[in-house]
Order: sequence, then C-alpha cells, then structure tokens
Amino acid sequence: MAGQSEACILVIFGATGDLARRKLYSALYALYRDGMLSANFAVVGVARREKTADGFRRDIFQSLQQYSRYKPSEDQTWPDFAGRFYYLPFDLRDRSGYVRLKELLAELDERYAVPGNRLFYLAVAPGNFEAAINNLAVAGLAVNEPPAWQRLMLEKPFGRDLASAEALNRQIRKLFAEEHIFRIDHYLGKEMIQNITVLRLANTFFEPVWNRNYINNIQINSVETVGVGERGAYYEKAGALRDMIQNHMLQLLTLMAMEPPAGLEGRVVRDEKVKVLRSLQPLTAERVIKDTVRGQYGPGCINGESAAGYRAEAGVASASNTETFAAMKVFIENFRWAGVPFYLRTGKRLAVKGTEIFIQFNSLPEINYFKDYGVLTPNLLVIRVNPVEGVHLQLNVKRPGTKNLIVPITMDFCQNCGLDINSPEAYERLLFDAIQGDPALFTGWEEVALAWRFVDPVAEVWAQSDVLFPNYAAGSWGPAQAADLLLRDGLRWWPVCGGRRSDLPDCWRNAGTAGYNIAPAVNAGPPDGQAGEAAVYGPH
Amino acid sequence: MAGQSEACILVIFGATGDLARRKLYSALYALYRDGMLSANFAVVGVARREKTADGFRRDIFQSLQQYSRYKPSEDQTWPDFAGRFYYLPFDLRDRSGYVRLKELLAELDERYAVPGNRLFYLAVAPGNFEAAINNLAVAGLAVNEPPAWQRLMLEKPFGRDLASAEALNRQIRKLFAEEHIFRIDHYLGKEMIQNITVLRLANTFFEPVWNRNYINNIQINSVETVGVGERGAYYEKAGALRDMIQNHMLQLLTLMAMEPPAGLEGRVVRDEKVKVLRSLQPLTAERVIKDTVRGQYGPGCINGESAAGYRAEAGVASASNTETFAAMKVFIENFRWAGVPFYLRTGKRLAVKGTEIFIQFNSLPEINYFKDYGVLTPNLLVIRVNPVEGVHLQLNVKRPGTKNLIVPITMDFCQNCGLDINSPEAYERLLFDAIQGDPALFTGWEEVALAWRFVDPVAEVWAQSDVLFPNYAAGSWGPAQAADLLLRDGLRWWPVCGGRRSDLPDCWRNAGTAGYNIAPAVNAGPPDGQAGEAAVYGPH
Repeated sequence: MAGQSEACILVIFGATGDLARRKLYSALYALYRDGMLSANFAVVGVARREKTADGFRRDIFQSLQQYSRYKPSEDQTWPDFAGRFYYLPFDLRDRSGYVRLKELLAELDERYAVPGNRLFYLAVAPGNFEAAINNLAVAGLAVNEPPAWQRLMLEKPFGRDLASAEALNRQIRKLFAEEHIFRIDHYLGKEMIQNITVLRLANTFFEPVWNRNYINNIQINSVETVGVGERGAYYEKAGALRDMIQNHMLQLLTLMAMEPPAGLEGRVVRDEKVKVLRSLQPLTAERVIKDTVRGQYGPGCINGESAAGYRAEAGVASASNTETFAAMKVFIENFRWAGVPFYLRTGKRLAVKGTEIFIQFNSLPEINYFKDYGVLTPNLLVIRVNPVEGVHLQLNVKRPGTKNLIVPITMDFCQNCGLDINSPEAYERLLFDAIQGDPALFTGWEEVALAWRFVDPVAEVWAQSDVLFPNYAAGSWGPAQAADLLLRDGLRWWPVCGGRRSDLPDCWRNAGTAGYNIAPAVNAGPPDGQAGEAAVYGPH
Repeated sequence: MAGQSEACILVIFGATGDLARRKLYSALYALYRDGMLSANFAVVGVARREKTADGFRRDIFQSLQQYSRYKPSEDQTWPDFAGRFYYLPFDLRDRSGYVRLKELLAELDERYAVPGNRLFYLAVAPGNFEAAINNLAVAGLAVNEPPAWQRLMLEKPFGRDLASAEALNRQIRKLFAEEHIFRIDHYLGKEMIQNITVLRLANTFFEPVWNRNYINNIQINSVETVGVGERGAYYEKAGALRDMIQNHMLQLLTLMAMEPPAGLEGRVVRDEKVKVLRSLQPLTAERVIKDTVRGQYGPGCINGESAAGYRAEAGVASASNTETFAAMKVFIENFRWAGVPFYLRTGKRLAVKGTEIFIQFNSLPEINYFKDYGVLTPNLLVIRVNPVEGVHLQLNVKRPGTKNLIVPITMDFCQNCGLDINSPEAYERLLFDAIQGDPALFTGWEEVALAWRFVDPVAEVWAQSDVLFPNYAAGSWGPAQAADLLLRDGLRWWPVCGGRRSDLPDCWRNAGTAGYNIAPAVNAGPPDGQAGEAAVYGPH
C-alpha cells in the first residue's frame, strides 16, 4: 500500500455487528494511523439499534481498545478520527432510512469535500443483501455518474449454490457494474496469500519446478480449533463446504495453480484464476463418494478443556447433519497439473488452528546411487499463512559423522515472529483497495459461479446420502476417512502446526510422522516468550 | 562412519611435526574414544629427534590437551590408548632405521594380533617422499602379500607440476598399486564437502536445476586471514596456485560439477571427477592473462592488528614474486555446464577466513509481470564449508504491507552452531577410511595429473610475465583485478562471511552488496555466546 486513499464516504451496513467491531474499525484506524486515509474521508454506520453519533464513537473506542493494534487511549489524533464517524439507525428494509442516508451523505460530501464517491459495505447477513441493494437503488444512491463512483462491498457467502448466487448477482448487476462490485474473500487480503504469487514466480528455485514434472501433491489446509460459537444458526445453513471450500479453499487452490498472469492488474489475474476453476475435474457422484470426506464434531477435548459437540451448540438442530469438516481430492485437468492431486482439508474443532499449504515434491528415484541411503524424505515447501506467517523448507542433508545416512532438515522463515513486524490485517488491505478501486484481491463473478458449479454436486450427493454424525471428536484431526483419503494414495497429511514456530519440531514428532523420518530438534529454537524468530531443526 | 576399523599398525613418518601434533593424534584419539578403532591397533611414530616411547606419549598427551575435543586428563582409558604408541628415532634417509622398524612391526603384529597390515603415513616434507618410499622397499616393508596389506598415505603437494608429479608417481607405483595409495586432500574429509553430493542429488529442489539452464555462475572461495606463518620456505616454492587451486579448489569444483555417479564406491566417484577435469577448457596464454588474477599481500591490518607483508615473512625472499592470492574464471566444456563460469578465489591475509561456495541461479526474466517490482535479487544457494558448516538460501518474498515490493530473505541451516553437535574433523574420517581401504575421499592419480595439466600453463605464463607485487594489503579482499574479473561479466563476488552465523546480515551489508538489495536483519539472530543455531534475515 502506498499513497493516500481516494476521497470517499464509507457506508457500513451492520455497523454494530461482529465483523465491524472486530475487524473493520481496527482496519480503518490502522489505515488512518499509518497515514493511508485521505483527509476527505468519513464513515456512516447504519444499524437498527438506536444510538447517537457520540454513542457510536464510544462503542468504536471500546472495540479498538480491544481489537486494534493501535490504542486510541494513547492517541492524540483520536478525536479527529472519531469525528469522522456518523450513525444512522434504521432497518435495512425501511426505505425511509435511505432517504435520510442520502441527505446525510450530501451533507458530508460538502463537509469533507468528497465528490460523491461512496463505498457501501454490506456487513450484514446475506438474507439482507437484496433488500439493501434494492433500497439503495430506489433512493437514487446507486447511480453511477463518473467521475463520481459508487461501489459495493459484500461479505461471503455469495449465494448458497449456483442458482441462488446467479439470482443475487442478477439483482446486484442491475445496479452495479461488475467493476464496482467488491466481493470479499478476506483470505486474499492475508500477507502470505499475496505472497504465493511472488514465491512461485520470483524464485528460480520454484518457478521452473512448479508443475506435474516435479510436484507430487499439494495439501491445502485451513483448520480451526474453535467451534461455531454464536454462529450456529448461520452455520446450519452453510456447513464447511459452503463456508470454506467454495470460497477460501478454492481461492487458495487457484493462486497455487494458476498460470503466471501477464500482468498484475486485477482483471488479468482473475482471468488466470478462472482458467484454473474451469479446468477442475468435475466431481461426479461416484467421485464424491470416493474422494470427498465430510465430518461433524462430537464432544471432545481441546487444549485440556472439554468441548461440546456440534449438535449441542446454540442454534443447531439436535439431529443436524451439517458438516463441520470437509476434505477432498481435486484434480486440475491442464498440462501443468494433470495427475497431481490437490488435497483440501478444512474443519472446526480440530486439534490445531492454522492455514498451511504443503507442496510435496516428487521423491528422487531410488536408484543405484541411493540404495545405501534408505528412503529419502520428500522435499517440502510449506507456506504458512496463519497464525504464523512464513515459509518452511524441508531438505535432505548428510548426517554429520556418518557415511551414508541422509536426514531431513528444516529451514524456516517467519515474517511475523519478530517483535517489530506487524503484517497488516487482511481488512486493511481490502478496504484500502476497494477505496482505490483495485479489484485484484476480490473475487470476480465468474470465479464465484465456477466455484459453485464445482461444489454443488458435492452438496447434492451429500444431501442425498446418509451419514452417521458425529464422526469425530472435538480436538481430533477429523474423521478417519480423511486420513484414508491420502493413505490410499500412499501419502499422508503433513502436520499443520499453527501456533508458535518453535513448536515445529515437537509438532512434527507428535504428529507421528516417524514414517517420514522427520528430524527432531537437536537445535531447539529460542525459548517461548523471547523474540524468537528463527528455528532450525536439524540432523538427528 | 560405522563399525570398528580393521586391524593394522599405523606408521607415522614425521611424528613430531605440526600435522601429527595438531591433527593426526587428535583424530586417532577421537576415533578411539568414539569406539571406532579396533583393539588390534597400534601406532609407530618415526622422526629424527631422540625420544623414548614414554616421552612420545607425554608429547601426545600435551598435543591432545591442546588440540583435541576430548581431553586425556579426564579420561580413564588414556593409559590404554597411550600404550599403543611406540617411537623410533631415525632419519628417513637412514636405511638402518627401517630395519629396526621392521623388527618393531613384527613384534607389534604379535602383541596386537595384527596380520601384517600397515598404513604408512608420510607426514613429512615432499622432498622426503622418495627416500622414505625407496627405503621402505629396500627393507621389505612394501611387499604386498594378501590378505595382509600395506598402504601409503601422502600429504599434498603431490609434485609441483605435471612432470614432477609423474616422476613421483612412477616411483611410488613401483612399490604400491594405485589402490593402496591414499593421496590426502583433507578438504574431502570435511563434512560439508561430503554433503555437496547429498545436497545436489537427494533434493528435488536442486537435482533438476543443477545445470546451465538454471545456474548463472558458481563461486568457489577458500580464503584465509592468516599469512604463511612458519611455512614461508615451503610456500615460496608453492604459491596459491600449487598450494590451493591445483588440489582443494579443483576438487571442490569437480564435486560441484560432476555427473551423478552410478554408485558410491570410490572408483565410480573418481571416474566422474576425472570426467570434469578432462572437460575443463584449457587456459591458453591469452586466457591466463584475461581470466586469471594473482596477488601478493603487502603490509596491512587484520581485525585491528597490523600484519607484515609477505616479503617480510620468515623464509621469504625480499623480492619474492610468489603469489599468495589466486583467482580465475574456469569453464567446463560439457553439456551440463557449457557457458557457466566457475569463479575460483583463494588467498592468504584476506579480510575473512572461510570456505564458501555460492551457486547463483539465473534471474527470472524481467517480463511484464515483474516490471513493477524492480530488479529481482537472484536466488542463491550457499554451501558453507568452514568455519560455519551449513547451508544458506536466498529467496524472494513480498515485503509485508506493500503492494509490489519484493525483498530477498535468507534462510539458514547451520549444523555446527548448536553446542551439542561436533562434526568430526576431516582427519578422523580420512584416517578411518584409509584403514578400511576406502578410497572415495582420496585423490586418484588421474585427478592429480589432470589438475596439473590444467594449472601448469597458468604457472608458466605467470612465471614469464612481470608482476608488480605486493598488490593487495593484508586484511583486504585481494587485488582489484579480482573484482574486475566478475564485474566484466556483470557480476560480483558474493560476500564470504565465515565466522559466526549471526554476523551474516551485517557481513552482507558491509560487503556493499546494496546493488543486490540484500535484506538487512530485521530479526537479529541470537546474541553471541548463546547456543545460537539459527538466524533468519528478513524483509526490510
């Protein structure tokens, strides 16, 4: 990010909601503190609750104290920042509210010298999208008269299958052109996910080997320890497939797999992602049964604390068959990837929280030369997205003092382990880009549609077939079939370690990767609590 | 190394010399303490000085206290180890000494149940090789009557040009078959040099890109801060070309460049190394002038202490033209390496002590996609042989919080930085292998001959042309022409950092690699004095 944002007014629908309180205000505040926001900028919060502008600002103060890396209590510029926030209480379905909104925006345009630019952020339940959009139109707030612009930002989910997504899209497109629609997949705002393209294409170590000739399989994990929390009612209608696979996981897959784009512009990158989605081998009913796994957590134990099963969560049916875990094997039918399995795995209430991508390279042939060495551990590149941001490589070296023993070692780069690096939060980047009109990190309609086309058959087969839920304990690694999915191919899931990097060697050992001859730590990383930014695990 | 050694008696000629005291006794003691030596083992020391066996043992005790990682003063088994050492004082040119040696060996054969196996180690000046070998023959000590064996171990230098090496070899080969001659290049005993083959061939990251399609150039450095010390008289006759390039540096080059051998047996590996030497593009007189650089140090300053120039060292002529620095550009004319320059650099009294190999990969094309990113730093693999043993990779990542900025990061594996890893000394491995009859880490005759054939023309051109010595100050990086050698090709020497790994970022910055956009440390490594085994330098 560089330079200040364009002049505009941001309208947040759902201004008292969880997302706004936890993420959006912090992101705006960080942009402000970092000098990224134009002076010609204001925010209007909209929600049902009655509240004054001052009350709204006090609430934001509280949220920032709790969630932001900058603390307003220590900030002399806080009054200037807070003064830019306005509040209008109305129900999204109430047209009169939009008339008042229009008046307020005109007033603020003048006060902040904004030339009619608006960013409407729908941080509300998807059931409200349609009403909000229609009423914006009726109030004349979605006119597009350049150079002034009106943009729409939407949170997922965008529909719940291809048909509903198409219906929603038709509705929106009546009022907003595709280039003014910013569909958020907040994973795309994460530093290490933006780094995937750089890692792949700016390194001679990786660019030439990034294909089926050198890569054995790719494992994309996004796993959580939390359950559904207060989102039970929403989750009942979604499930892991719609909540994670259709959007985040398939987006990660496209970034890993796409051909090098001809440029950095959003449209050019999108075109490459679309090509990947078009090349996905469809999951026929037969393949859904064979190559996908669903699960739902029962009671269990995480980090020493007992956790209830999904069916006992608030808002969840006592006989719910909603999946809280999904894993699948996916193939991309193009010249770069034919025959290389991409394994996706996501779930709630698993043993570890972490988004990590494993690229397993082909093992070298066990020829003559290596016959004395035993089985070689495959080379790995691990892209750690969250919570640790970094890259981790596994190589083979000779074990010192021995003649023929080869051992794997791990080299690790962690960019958020030092105390002085704060990677920007995803929402900072995404809000800034939307204000600037840069679509690169947002999901285009074609991607949404193709992703639904890919997952819909899975949802259908799952809906039609019986399942014995719950089938995994909270705090475990999900249903046994998920392990079988790879074992059948002679593989296994590499361990997602999440958390602190210095846990890596223990984590790999505990994950029972002995069959892979993982090197335990002889050189332990820095002790917990220190500014430990490096750990090298090496030969045993 | 594994298993115990064969029964044998080791005869060390030059038993009171520097090499024996500093290296050989420590190596034998480490093998003994590590349980690698057979109980059927004894050592006879030979030197001119009068000394009793007890006096000899006391001297060894002192040497071990000073140089060995095991201390005999703390060792209950010391008397058993020491008791295996015997001493015979005689001049190598005195035949009667060999008669007494033969008698002693017969006696020891009986005492230690050794079936006539002898390893003769010539740890003496090369001028004595011929006399020792002849007299061994005359005394009937070089008969070869299997299953008993007699082997010969020789230190470098093996000749001073092709003609003298051939003469020496003819002499030796009258008495010892090639398979019983163990020509030491102690670099080959170093852990990281043995690791080169494993790194290259056991990693999918490297094996497929190890050729001219992906590698831009390879820089092989072995540089020292010390001067000639007490070896002035020897060095006057050698110089950097004969002392380092002909043996160590060309051996490193062969290991980096050779085709994968069909097996691990010494002969098979040697054949591949020979192929590389055969493929060296000969250095014509014209190319010697253009692509080689020699230097000699004048007075200067190293680590804050003043250092005399070479011509002021003991045993050195006041107008000496012996080179203490040599650098050259070498090409290998085969399909793997055509067009890839190998730059060799070695010298005394340079700024840093270190043996380090840099593999610089081709930069990716500066196409469309990267136009916003500026110049990409090339990917590097650095093999650090000495004093730090490890591997260091340079990759490009996205700088966090920015849109388009790519920065290099360094990932580092250090195998001797932890406190609990002691890589075996080169001589441990070499002595053990010679006792076992494994020639893999020794230099075959063909290699010696081809290496002389390659360097002889350089020596000739240098001898015939004038040179203005001294041409570099002690403590500098050598003569300016050495930098020009690469600058002419649009390249520069990557910095040899030696020393502690945590100095790496400072070292790169100080080496003035700003043009390469080297990342300074934002995450400093562990502070000095700690068990610091890891350091990650990353993005600025």
